[in-house]
Amino acid sequence: MSEQPELTVQGWGPGGASEAPDLAAVLPKAARRHLARELGWTPRPTPPVAVDEIRLPPSRLPADVHAELVALLGEDHVRTDRDARLRRAGGRSYTDLLRRRAGDASGAPDAVVLPGGTAQTAALLALCSERGVLVVPFGGGTSVVGGLAGADPDDRPSLAVDLARMASLADVDVASSLVTVGPGMRGPALEAALAPHALALGHLPQSWEFATVGGYAATRSAGQASTGVGRFDDLVAGLTLATPSGVLELGHPPASAAGPDLLGLALGSEGAFGVVTELRLRVRPAPRAARYEGWSFRSWADGLAGLQRLARHDLLPDVVRLSDPDETRATLLNAGGTGARLLRGALRARGRGGGCLLVVGWEGLAPLVRARRGAARPVLREHGAVPIGRRVGESWRRHRYAAPYLRDRLMDAGLLVETLETAATWTDLPAVYDAVRAALRASLGREGRQPLVMSHVSHGYPTGASLYVTVLADRDDALPLQQWLTAKRAATDALLAAGGTLTHHHAVGADHRPWLEREVGPLGVEVLRAVKQRLDPRGVCNPGVLLPDREGFS
Amino acid sequence: MSEQPELTVQGWGPGGASEAPDLAAVLPKAARRHLARELGWTPRPTPPVAVDEIRLPPSRLPADVHAELVALLGEDHVRTDRDARLRRAGGRSYTDLLRRRAGDASGAPDAVVLPGGTAQTAALLALCSERGVLVVPFGGGTSVVGGLAGADPDDRPSLAVDLARMASLADVDVASSLVTVGPGMRGPALEAALAPHALALGHLPQSWEFATVGGYAATRSAGQASTGVGRFDDLVAGLTLATPSGVLELGHPPASAAGPDLLGLALGSEGAFGVVTELRLRVRPAPRAARYEGWSFRSWADGLAGLQRLARHDLLPDVVRLSDPDETRATLLNAGGTGARLLRGALRARGRGGGCLLVVGWEGLAPLVRARRGAARPVLREHGAVPIGRRVGESWRRHRYAAPYLRDRLMDAGLLVETLETAATWTDLPAVYDAVRAALRASLGREGRQPLVMSHVSHGYPTGASLYVTVLADRDDALPLQQWLTAKRAATDALLAAGGTLTHHHAVGADHRPWLEREVGPLGVEVLRAVKQRLDPRGVCNPGVLLPDREGFS
Repeated sequence: MSEQPELTVQGWGPGGASEAPDLAAVLPKAARRHLARELGWTPRPTPPVAVDEIRLPPSRLPADVHAELVALLGEDHVRTDRDARLRRAGGRSYTDLLRRRAGDASGAPDAVVLPGGTAQTAALLALCSERGVLVVPFGGGTSVVGGLAGADPDDRPSLAVDLARMASLADVDVASSLVTVGPGMRGPALEAALAPHALALGHLPQSWEFATVGGYAATRSAGQASTGVGRFDDLVAGLTLATPSGVLELGHPPASAAGPDLLGLALGSEGAFGVVTELRLRVRPAPRAARYEGWSFRSWADGLAGLQRLARHDLLPDVVRLSDPDETRATLLNAGGTGARLLRGALRARGRGGGCLLVVGWEGLAPLVRARRGAARPVLREHGAVPIGRRVGESWRRHRYAAPYLRDRLMDAGLLVETLETAATWTDLPAVYDAVRAALRASLGREGRQPLVMSHVSHGYPTGASLYVTVLADRDDALPLQQWLTAKRAATDALLAAGGTLTHHHAVGADHRPWLEREVGPLGVEVLRAVKQRLDPRGVCNPGVLLPDREGFS
Repeated sequence: MSEQPELTVQGWGPGGASEAPDLAAVLPKAARRHLARELGWTPRPTPPVAVDEIRLPPSRLPADVHAELVALLGEDHVRTDRDARLRRAGGRSYTDLLRRRAGDASGAPDAVVLPGGTAQTAALLALCSERGVLVVPFGGGTSVVGGLAGADPDDRPSLAVDLARMASLADVDVASSLVTVGPGMRGPALEAALAPHALALGHLPQSWEFATVGGYAATRSAGQASTGVGRFDDLVAGLTLATPSGVLELGHPPASAAGPDLLGLALGSEGAFGVVTELRLRVRPAPRAARYEGWSFRSWADGLAGLQRLARHDLLPDVVRLSDPDETRATLLNAGGTGARLLRGALRARGRGGGCLLVVGWEGLAPLVRARRGAARPVLREHGAVPIGRRVGESWRRHRYAAPYLRDRLMDAGLLVETLETAATWTDLPAVYDAVRAALRASLGREGRQPLVMSHVSHGYPTGASLYVTVLADRDDALPLQQWLTAKRAATDALLAAGGTLTHHHAVGADHRPWLEREVGPLGVEVLRAVKQRLDPRGVCNPGVLLPDREGFS
């Protein structure tokens, strides 16, 4: 259906589960031993059911609506086959994967439609509004917060609106550093299309190989270089949003003071107001110089203090990634081969057995890379950091998209593996870190078992930073969903109470919406409802995400 | 009522018109001659009426509402005296000044109230909503787009809600570069309060001496250093908005992906959704180094090309101000004394009689100022610019707030003097520039008379830049309002048609609202109406601004 590779139904990457390598092939023995010891985990095969065995409910799309969709979009662009529906049955959170690995695709759409442009999407939405059919925009399927849940209290049939046909680079304005792209375009294709113009977007989230620019906009994504390049929000100069009530053309580059920011209201709307059908993005000259390197701090507190000092003085590198002691240890164990031996050797030579690993990277014009690096290094040293070389930085770059692939293999072997993320001011960040760790350890600790909670800061701002947490634990084979949902609830309550934001770059989705009111207040939720009511009066646009159920905690 | 100096009723600055110096004392003879020649203008005394003679309609505030306001706020904080009402009778646009200079204060509020905090403001708004009394927030009174118009189709009584009692620095979080301030605080007071912490805000619009931070937020202000420091939008990490429906607490620093950006919906809301009662602002270390200097380009096209190239590579200085040939000539004539002679000499020595003047400034850590300046200079040279020294830069800094004072004196002598501003992408900017100039010259040109249209770029972005236009013309003494409103309408139509934004940093106010639909589309206007309806169901919050009348062109 798309020329771009699609994610496998039950995990990450384009391959099927059957082609999956063994855990032993992807995780060094020392790392497996470390995990077994830390977690009280006994490696065991817990493979997914075969894709053929996944239970998919029959399509509930009424025949007359199907006919109207075919009339609007053409036969090829209305799909109800098993493969098309299965591949759009939710996102890639741990709970999404648990369900589909167990053979449950009950949240799958009743059909998949592929509109070819703004006008067709607007007509589709008007039709769906009239017919009471839900529309869930589908980009790369990489949501980790239930953004594709398609849930509906009224149980109406639902369509996945696949963006794959709107996936081209329509215009390049080199002088203004602006390009116009379709929402279905993915990072690799966009960067490849920009390269002949010596331009780059530079938005590089971990999902880069599969996620789409429409998805980035709908979820307010951030990338691994967003400290320097900016959040995706900052890269959107304009967008077109098709809604059941008409089309919005928003954004006026370079900047406007003509009333409240409606573009910012479309960003992060997660399909609940409509479908993004075109974007105008800010690009930049392809960087001429790049310098990545590793540093080691004695402690997490030292590392945070060093980054905060850099942030205050606008000296943060473009990529900043500070791992806590637990993540640093896992990184060292996980890195197999010569690289890891060299790294461990380098650390020992500098009197560091563990500490906190910092990866930093600068990109751009060579003299500015030199100047910024030259100004940052003394600050790092003042906070006790020692440089451990370029090899560490380059190794991180090579493996920057690897974690979700590894997750599949860990899930195959009886592990709970999930991530969550937040952000807080520099002042609140240490308390948020402590609170999340304590909550996860309390919730997931059992007789002789402890989760491994690994954290890093990866997006720095003058006012604070993000915190990204990876959790591993021995899976409760009897109640695996409940095991994680309980832990997630405890962690979310704890991080909000300590001053963290509900999400720094994963969006609200279905999973976070019970807490949205804690973030924006009851009146803030009511403002969003008023906007949705105006744009989507029949509530057909992705009703399972963003806004909490009226009854309160869902 | 406030410890901060208030603007005079009929012009700029704290003094009364009677203390005003003569035009000859503030404008060199050569400049006066140049104006007379260019404009076909005969200098003549056109002084304002005495303040005592301004016609102020009696207050329409019902006695029972007055009593309720006194009960809520205290007697001292409900004012209906002539001076209090006159001082809040509109802003400082040319048409505002024309009216009050002619003795017309018909738009004055019926009373002035001074709430002391968020809870009191929320109670005030609920009361006004119930009683059908309009509320117009009043900060420094510096709006130049009719933001304080207080117009209402139903002709209800109106209150100016003066922010002066909410004007303190409540909290300083140095580590997170965040401060909490009241909306009534002005730039000088805030910078003075930050100085002991070695911090600075750095938001320096021309209205800096009088405008308030609440006003900056409500209008999406930009400052003279916003190329480097960011627009005011970028400096607001959070704010509290009291509305008739309750209180919104918005923004979660450093960043959040928890749904659409509601903070961005409060910014630029111009009092139409409620009153900003507290702000959390991003500050920065007081700069340790500063370097300002002048350059001269051969032509406007060369200058724009040079700035565009700097912008693409993220090399723009913190302050960038490129004047077109007309503004450059006026600047040279206007600069009296030794400085001007030196500047003219420097230009002649470099073979430049006129050209386009560029003022640039860098601030921050010394090594980065050096590196950024070092990387920018060759780019400027490649585009034919020649350096003309620090004195030019320092002179601009000294006089950066002078223009509005001079305007009063020009108005005293029979001139039309007004400014307007827009922004466009680098690609569209030349066409926007041509279109605005042509429209103004066509509208204001008469037998033997031509306006002088002077422009500069003062806010650079990777994607484009602002354009700020100053217009001088011989005033039509019979129909002065109509003369300017006709020209403004022509200029606005022209700049929108050429791809400019309705306003880059002056807001919509009453003056631009007929064109808002051109900027955000009819559905965009409807979304704003839906938000207003939810927050201000009785429509008492500054109904004369932002949203167009339902009937269309007002």
